[in-house]
Amino acid sequence: MNTFRQHIEKITPVTDEEFEYIFSLFSIKKLRKHQFLVQEDHEVTNDYWVISGLLKAYHINEDGKMHILQFAMEDWWISDYQAYNNKTLATISIDCIEDSELLVISKENKEKLCSEMHTLANFFRKKSNIGYVALQQRILMLLEKNPQERYNRLYQLTPQLLQRLPKTLLAAYLGVSRETLSRLKQP
Amino acid sequence: MNTFRQHIEKITPVTDEEFEYIFSLFSIKKLRKHQFLVQEDHEVTNDYWVISGLLKAYHINEDGKMHILQFAMEDWWISDYQAYNNKTLATISIDCIEDSELLVISKENKEKLCSEMHTLANFFRKKSNIGYVALQQRILMLLEKNPQERYNRLYQLTPQLLQRLPKTLLAAYLGVSRETLSRLKQP
Repeated sequence: MNTFRQHIEKITPVTDEEFEYIFSLFSIKKLRKHQFLVQEDHEVTNDYWVISGLLKAYHINEDGKMHILQFAMEDWWISDYQAYNNKTLATISIDCIEDSELLVISKENKEKLCSEMHTLANFFRKKSNIGYVALQQRILMLLEKNPQERYNRLYQLTPQLLQRLPKTLLAAYLGVSRETLSRLKQP
Repeated sequence: MNTFRQHIEKITPVTDEEFEYIFSLFSIKKLRKHQFLVQEDHEVTNDYWVISGLLKAYHINEDGKMHILQFAMEDWWISDYQAYNNKTLATISIDCIEDSELLVISKENKEKLCSEMHTLANFFRKKSNIGYVALQQRILMLLEKNPQERYNRLYQLTPQLLQRLPKTLLAAYLGVSRETLSRLKQP
């Protein structure tokens, strides 16, 4: 799994032996478009890294409206981290926008890795820090940017994601109606 | 610094010797109400843990409107993590709502701690995971909850924070006008 090793080595170098050991704690999961990775009210015992495909993490409120928390495509991690960290039931759902292939690691194995390998604890610490900052940026965007600015910003950050997203999902992520989205200029 | 040791030991036990070493890498900073901890466009080389007091992290947009990213009171960490992680200039400001006393650690010393002490790498990893989930919850709240629901939720999570916050800041955090806030029911 060359791309996964590259993913880790963007942050920390690992030896062949170390990588072999790390990789032995992961398994592979394949899902088809529309299949669920995480379902609301179910247990969440795994973290996932996307080998290929595209997924969305979302919540549907009482009025049946979908709000998108996160997308994940190649090279991104995804799970319901609230449920995963606290061993509570999922409060969001995650399903596949495209056929997807994922690396899967159980919470037990991830914690084992982090307690055995200093470098991996720091790898996941840094990944979490990067994710934290991305979420802060999204909060500021939601608080102070208008729909056009949000659209432009998303395009700037992840142009390749925008091209793969159905418009309805893009609108749900930006927090605007499908009608508002159709009035926005293509960035 | 008993409370700081307790803060660490909520996640991982440390020996007297280890704690003494950890603590030796921190210094103490005292600020008065209205003083800045971080200023937009300045360098951010430190992370901060609040011993006492109350601070706000915020951004002021082109129209002069303040948007609040985060508060921090006793036992919370705060910094401009985007600037801190990426060695870029601050894009937010952080100042004191009350006189505040903080523990300060430089990025160099924090990385040193995390590379020397396995347990500390895992401590900061878990703190970052907890922060990540809190931000996800805030995003969902901004996307799908009305002002009254946001107010109730904040009260539920941190009743002691609400009592200490001026109404103007509370409104800026909830993303509503001062007028809207005054029409909300006290949770």
